[in-house]
Amino acid sequence: MKVGGLLASAGINIGLCVLFLSLYSILRKQPQNVKVYFGRRIAEENNRLRDAFILERFVPSPSWIVKSLRCTEDELLATAGLDAVVFNRILVFSIRIFSLAAILCVFGILPLNYFGQDMHHVRIPSASLETFTIGNMQERSRWLWVHCVVLYIISVAACVLLYSEYKHIARLRLCHISRSTSNPSHFTVLVRGIPKSSTESFNKTVQSFFTKYHASSYLSHQVVYKVGKVQKIVSGAKKVYRKFRHFKGTKVDQRCRSITFQCCFCGASSNSFQLLPIDFEQEESEKPDVNDSSLSLPDEECGAAFVFFKTRYAALVVAKILQTSNPMRWVTSLAPERDDIYWSNLWLPYKQIWIRHIATLLGSIVFMFIFLLPVTFIQGLTQLEQLQQRLPFLRGILKKNYMTQLITGYLPSVILQIFLYTVPPTMMLFSTLEGPISHSERKKSACCKVLYFTIWNVFFVNVLSGSAISQVIALSSPKAIPMQLARAVPVQATFFTTYVLTSGWASLSSELMQLFALTWNFIRRYILRMTEDDFLYSFPYHTEVPKVLLFGLLGFTCAVLAPLILPFLLLYFCLGYVVYRNQFLPFQFLNVYCTKYDTGGLYWPIAHNTTIFSLVLAQIICLGVFGLKESPVAAGFTVPLIIFTLLFNQYCRKRHLPLFKTFPAQNLIDMDQEDQQMGRTEDLNERLHSAYFQFPDTDDIPLEGVHTNSRDKDGSGTCGESSRKENADDDPIDVLSHPTLDRLPVSQLRNVVRSLSSILRPQRRELPV
Amino acid sequence: MKVGGLLASAGINIGLCVLFLSLYSILRKQPQNVKVYFGRRIAEENNRLRDAFILERFVPSPSWIVKSLRCTEDELLATAGLDAVVFNRILVFSIRIFSLAAILCVFGILPLNYFGQDMHHVRIPSASLETFTIGNMQERSRWLWVHCVVLYIISVAACVLLYSEYKHIARLRLCHISRSTSNPSHFTVLVRGIPKSSTESFNKTVQSFFTKYHASSYLSHQVVYKVGKVQKIVSGAKKVYRKFRHFKGTKVDQRCRSITFQCCFCGASSNSFQLLPIDFEQEESEKPDVNDSSLSLPDEECGAAFVFFKTRYAALVVAKILQTSNPMRWVTSLAPERDDIYWSNLWLPYKQIWIRHIATLLGSIVFMFIFLLPVTFIQGLTQLEQLQQRLPFLRGILKKNYMTQLITGYLPSVILQIFLYTVPPTMMLFSTLEGPISHSERKKSACCKVLYFTIWNVFFVNVLSGSAISQVIALSSPKAIPMQLARAVPVQATFFTTYVLTSGWASLSSELMQLFALTWNFIRRYILRMTEDDFLYSFPYHTEVPKVLLFGLLGFTCAVLAPLILPFLLLYFCLGYVVYRNQFLPFQFLNVYCTKYDTGGLYWPIAHNTTIFSLVLAQIICLGVFGLKESPVAAGFTVPLIIFTLLFNQYCRKRHLPLFKTFPAQNLIDMDQEDQQMGRTEDLNERLHSAYFQFPDTDDIPLEGVHTNSRDKDGSGTCGESSRKENADDDPIDVLSHPTLDRLPVSQLRNVVRSLSSILRPQRRELPV
Repeated sequence: MKVGGLLASAGINIGLCVLFLSLYSILRKQPQNVKVYFGRRIAEENNRLRDAFILERFVPSPSWIVKSLRCTEDELLATAGLDAVVFNRILVFSIRIFSLAAILCVFGILPLNYFGQDMHHVRIPSASLETFTIGNMQERSRWLWVHCVVLYIISVAACVLLYSEYKHIARLRLCHISRSTSNPSHFTVLVRGIPKSSTESFNKTVQSFFTKYHASSYLSHQVVYKVGKVQKIVSGAKKVYRKFRHFKGTKVDQRCRSITFQCCFCGASSNSFQLLPIDFEQEESEKPDVNDSSLSLPDEECGAAFVFFKTRYAALVVAKILQTSNPMRWVTSLAPERDDIYWSNLWLPYKQIWIRHIATLLGSIVFMFIFLLPVTFIQGLTQLEQLQQRLPFLRGILKKNYMTQLITGYLPSVILQIFLYTVPPTMMLFSTLEGPISHSERKKSACCKVLYFTIWNVFFVNVLSGSAISQVIALSSPKAIPMQLARAVPVQATFFTTYVLTSGWASLSSELMQLFALTWNFIRRYILRMTEDDFLYSFPYHTEVPKVLLFGLLGFTCAVLAPLILPFLLLYFCLGYVVYRNQFLPFQFLNVYCTKYDTGGLYWPIAHNTTIFSLVLAQIICLGVFGLKESPVAAGFTVPLIIFTLLFNQYCRKRHLPLFKTFPAQNLIDMDQEDQQMGRTEDLNERLHSAYFQFPDTDDIPLEGVHTNSRDKDGSGTCGESSRKENADDDPIDVLSHPTLDRLPVSQLRNVVRSLSSILRPQRRELPV
Repeated sequence: MKVGGLLASAGINIGLCVLFLSLYSILRKQPQNVKVYFGRRIAEENNRLRDAFILERFVPSPSWIVKSLRCTEDELLATAGLDAVVFNRILVFSIRIFSLAAILCVFGILPLNYFGQDMHHVRIPSASLETFTIGNMQERSRWLWVHCVVLYIISVAACVLLYSEYKHIARLRLCHISRSTSNPSHFTVLVRGIPKSSTESFNKTVQSFFTKYHASSYLSHQVVYKVGKVQKIVSGAKKVYRKFRHFKGTKVDQRCRSITFQCCFCGASSNSFQLLPIDFEQEESEKPDVNDSSLSLPDEECGAAFVFFKTRYAALVVAKILQTSNPMRWVTSLAPERDDIYWSNLWLPYKQIWIRHIATLLGSIVFMFIFLLPVTFIQGLTQLEQLQQRLPFLRGILKKNYMTQLITGYLPSVILQIFLYTVPPTMMLFSTLEGPISHSERKKSACCKVLYFTIWNVFFVNVLSGSAISQVIALSSPKAIPMQLARAVPVQATFFTTYVLTSGWASLSSELMQLFALTWNFIRRYILRMTEDDFLYSFPYHTEVPKVLLFGLLGFTCAVLAPLILPFLLLYFCLGYVVYRNQFLPFQFLNVYCTKYDTGGLYWPIAHNTTIFSLVLAQIICLGVFGLKESPVAAGFTVPLIIFTLLFNQYCRKRHLPLFKTFPAQNLIDMDQEDQQMGRTEDLNERLHSAYFQFPDTDDIPLEGVHTNSRDKDGSGTCGESSRKENADDDPIDVLSHPTLDRLPVSQLRNVVRSLSSILRPQRRELPV
């Protein structure tokens, strides 16, 4: 590929980017799209704009960029959660390290490579891109030490930056824990694998176990119920009811809105809080005996329960200590937050989990290898000669110069990109089958799977099989791998550069534009004529984190060998920084994405490990290249660098990783003691009883509205409750969602259905239809 | 190699074995060797025999075998500890599975292999051993399904047996914990990485930390002191003093002996308890303030302390929970038992440990590869043609038939054996450098290293490089490994058979004979004319466990392919069962080996994992062989077997392994509650203060005497104390071992030395010289 081809590709992409950004800055001002880019609240404020024609609306403006850059980390943390901050730090890290790398490599290594051989240099636009790679250096060149020194500087700088980021995020994580004083999940332990007893209900078993062994700290518990058929009928009826109510229109809506305004920041719609009347709940917790006697049918409970403790430390202790001599029973772990729980996995028998893990692991590996087929075919497109041999009818078309440039520079990565779109949903499916108990765990697991997949299929397969269309993978000899990588990476650098242009830049623009959401909004609004406002997804970390990390990998591996990729990459990261921050912005986040759950910064260890892997891979490839170029000094100096990087990683694992796996006792005890001094303990313990109520959410409607986000702000928890109280007797139908319903005999059920329909009937009369 | 050669080798070894066993049964009756095979106590009882000449002494008798077999598992557990039981179970498992395998393979597969090809069969003694391997089967033979079925039966039987053993040992481990009610290590947490404070001593820091965060359960603590130079001088002086006292002869000795008799079972010599006067200790614990003020020099303390808790559960909790936000500080773990502690590693800074781990890992890997050189040379000896080419002068010698048989059948494994003797000490050295805090941990780590080493160097190197003298290792292609293994294992089975004969049988005999100890005893008695009785080593699990597991590996891999090895192997395991039980026997163990420390059954997971590895390896090799023999059905059926075995292993990891990593809360809480009900808590807590006193043992003399073995028997702990009290004011010199001595100014030190010599002088006058 020539420099001209690259520039053509860059041109196309820059054009597309500018187009998308301008479109975005126009579209976001259009009232009909306000739901895509902003929230309901803002939509209302903008009501005055709805029908007026203002010229300003159709002029692109860069104000959103300024706003996006002005947002501080604390704001980001407060609104979008720790995961967003971590994602932001990954981008910051990438920008820092690749700025340094770009300066060093473009001004230090690029000229060296270009003038590496005594040759006749053609005009730069028609120069082959390979003259800019290390492949152009002469063997035994005395300038190879420059490459080695630059590799040293980049590696050491990366390690220093990584360490400071790790430290920073670990500190943030601790602050995050310390600040969330009212978080009920800190007091709650999820117990699974509760043994079935023929004489006692689960309820009794749990109670007797914890009163016997953890009497001093045990508070209460709540058994998880399996959703039965009746529950499904009721939730179906509830949905119907909600639809009817929706048609009733303005009255209900406005009341909801007023409450949303009242709690102001979390943007909770009242729907989620009126589902369960508070007095019913209290009644239940006050009469445990009645409840127990009614729970005589063990089939409907499943072997899982939430157990509440008086202090955070007690909960942590119970969660971390092996409870009984059978490790498959009484399995304890800290409970996820209420909104984070993946209910339908809670009633999986714990004994299945290990086999599900293995099965999904195997499944994803198989998927990884089946995916090879289209990738290897696509890779062949970059090699025109082979393509012409295989498909002779193309010869005519390929003779034209611009077609060649288009095909080699642009098409392969677009096709690859389209195939890659199927990956995250598949991996998410695998992760769901694995049986995680929380949404965040599922997303994190999917993130890892997508990451391995991407690195394997985009990087390794391209590098290892890129040289021949027929060769699938040549993993025949491990010793030869560094050499083969060393030979292939500089050659494939061109492909990676175009990949950055197409996949990177274009995906950023489409992320900003929310193309899918926009299209969907358009279809709904103008074709389906729906007005319900259901635009709330959580941020797709499982696609974006692997994407950014893959570009980091490409950057590290190509930096010294083919520095031409770096400016494009740096641009990508800068653009990404602006775009993603924009998506996370305080006023933005509530609507583009909502943060219903948060892993608490667990994406950072993934990013750290991947970066270390990229560094070591880059060093190994350089070692191979120095070996090929017969420079024993440079190769010799690379070996200690690899060892140093691995040691650094090991140190980080020892020093920081444990904080991401558990909470330190000191902090939790400090919090507990502070609570006690402030006299908050009673209050907190009382709130726990209702914190994990199961049924309001079994008809899982992620698009329905944001639930109480009690994560960062003490206020939001109470605001959720206030709205719940206000709407307590609003929905008589929701009384039915109580678990006892599942155990009613058929005759009583009929009565329930009758009364249900009697409630619904008068409302239907009010319908505007 | 011919059957005759194998029989010659077997003959030599059987002869040697019978000789050794007879010698043992004679030697053990000789009064002068009584110290080698029996203890002091028995030696005294046998005094009447000392000079009498009795014919019975020189007649071999099998009574010891009967005694060895009669010993029950409970007896073994009570005297030799859980590790001995685990070792015994490994042998029992091997005998069971290889009995089955031997029956199936010798009667089912051996005839199939022998008549596998239409060929002229020579007389069996001169038949090549290879006619008995699967190599003799025809390709596409319809009898290969028999091999596959036998492989299935062996694998399933092995899994069933492994599972029941795992369950049994896990149960034993729990019983072992529950029974040791007075074990102070259950109440004690070892804290390392205590942060240095400029204003406070470690003592104060520890106290304030634990009173702040674990006030309800914290009892007291004890800082670990670093042994300084003065301490070394004092302990040197103490040794000299002890020597002098030794020369004083009978008087002191007999007094010691009377005390030993008093505590009867643990066989403790009084030496170990008179080192520190009890009242001094009490004085210290009563006046912590005096102590603190004297501890103002922080250099002499190190960042480690034993912290005692009121209950076992509290100690477990503190040990398992991450304490602070810096995982390198306040690192907690359950303390090893007093006699198990490796003191000199306690004052290593915790920050170093991770790098020591890596360094020793690298060190042992390098050692593993350097070791290849002699092994590959030795392997060449089995290939006579190549040897004759290389060393032409040997040609004359090698023409003689018996020489050929000797060299091919016997010599290679003897030389390998001699080289292998250097391995355990080296690995032990590596494990020491690693920084383990207990002797048992060190031995376990050495065991793993020796195991990997043995499997790699005895099995893989022989198999992979066995075919050519010049070829070091051909690890060039991972895909080809199963095929190469499949080709090489049947060929190398001959070597492995002779290896079982020489290394296995001979090492068992020498283990029983205690050749080293016997020789040393002889040298000491008749050449050096020493009479001190220093024959107390703990059982070398780090050499014996890998040996047994390696034979298991050889058995599994060769069973189906070359069944001729199985009878020899089975004989080895049976012999080993008798011999090792004999070494562990109640009256024996006190003297041949003493159990000063115990891992609590942690060798079993190692054995389990190795057995699973062996099984899977055997299955992979069979897969390769079936592939080579072009039997797709047999090969196809082997794949699910591999998957099943791996799944089984994963299940065991989930089901049983956690019990070997921690203690279950339920059991500990039950024990705590029982203590409270019985009113034992006070008593236990009081004893804790003195349980981990550091200095009596800093001049680590493992041969000096058995310390209080408070593991299984409640009585022994008190017996140790009683002897300590009796000898409290016996050794004035031992007052000096107190840590404060290390901080004395030079002038006072001189005074100490003067008074020291004044004590010593009158005693020297009493010397019998």
